[in-house]
Amino acid sequence: MRISELSAQSGVTVPTIKYYLREGLLPEGERSAPTQATYGATHVERLGVIRALLDAGVSVAETRRVLATLDDPPASAHELLGAAHSAITRPADEGVDLSATERLVSGLGWKPGTCDPDVLGDVARALDGLERAGFAVPDAAMPVYLQSIRAIADAEVAATPTESAEAAVRYVVLGSVLVEPLLLALRRVAEQVASAERFGGTTTAP
Amino acid sequence: MRISELSAQSGVTVPTIKYYLREGLLPEGERSAPTQATYGATHVERLGVIRALLDAGVSVAETRRVLATLDDPPASAHELLGAAHSAITRPADEGVDLSATERLVSGLGWKPGTCDPDVLGDVARALDGLERAGFAVPDAAMPVYLQSIRAIADAEVAATPTESAEAAVRYVVLGSVLVEPLLLALRRVAEQVASAERFGGTTTAP
Repeated sequence: MRISELSAQSGVTVPTIKYYLREGLLPEGERSAPTQATYGATHVERLGVIRALLDAGVSVAETRRVLATLDDPPASAHELLGAAHSAITRPADEGVDLSATERLVSGLGWKPGTCDPDVLGDVARALDGLERAGFAVPDAAMPVYLQSIRAIADAEVAATPTESAEAAVRYVVLGSVLVEPLLLALRRVAEQVASAERFGGTTTAP
Repeated sequence: MRISELSAQSGVTVPTIKYYLREGLLPEGERSAPTQATYGATHVERLGVIRALLDAGVSVAETRRVLATLDDPPASAHELLGAAHSAITRPADEGVDLSATERLVSGLGWKPGTCDPDVLGDVARALDGLERAGFAVPDAAMPVYLQSIRAIADAEVAATPTESAEAAVRYVVLGSVLVEPLLLALRRVAEQVASAERFGGTTTAP
């Protein structure tokens, strides 16, 4: 199909498709003439993935890395998760002390060597942000965070599809990234429900 | 103190402080001369909150709204949460069908009127993103998401401090926003730990 039909089928405008081509997010179509290319179903599917990642707040550079992992996945299922996480994780700051973070994440079952130091660095950065804002997570909440998050991860890993390598790759790479906005949105709903039950009243948008 | 000392105490550069002043994130200091202002401990504290919000990925406009909620909070604890969520939630799209979302969030204890429609819209948007990417949350994972997220929200709401209105405001407004990066980072660690247990091997950064 031509670029105009790709636009109609995907709901993405032609200038935006051209931008994704320039940014290397969408592979070039097959050249049918010097100024014309044809696109196929894989382009429609890829546009859906690109839109979902960008809408989820993933940057263009991170999206490029997530897509590269989808296209050229590492051999083992466990390395796959590491590669997906690396694509969306900032490198840990040099010489940062991770000992407090390591003590905390031992509550997730973490042991030395079981996860990527950059991902640990993300936890350290989040804790640092809370501290700088003068915010202390209540002692009663932290164990619930650890226990609940571990339950979520266990369910996710247990549900990794094994019928094909491609299905596993899509599940791990997209699931680790794209489920984030869902979990955050569900937390806001759950907070409002729990708050209404404790403090009463209904919430309307101000 | 002068702006240079405010910079030294807060670790934020003078040009950045001036940018926050222009953007209305940081209140003006007290004018001591036509081209000079003095700043106090509240400015240092506020800079910590601003940095934490921006580092957490909250936009400048959202940060301004979160700070406005901190400075001029609604009277009831429940409305406070709604105001904090509104500050960081995009308005729901006009005429979007929320029925599938409502069925889903009934698993969080949600009932009609117990939460802000914009927050429901966030769940709908997240589900829409997953669908567009061709990603289906496994049937076995969704109930665990709902149950675990509800446990998190219950623990958070139960821990709302009651000793002072100011403490409650800070807790609800900053907690709902600033804990998000921590939960996402903990999920990545937990996924890697659970994945290592299931598939074996250690993860190193590629």
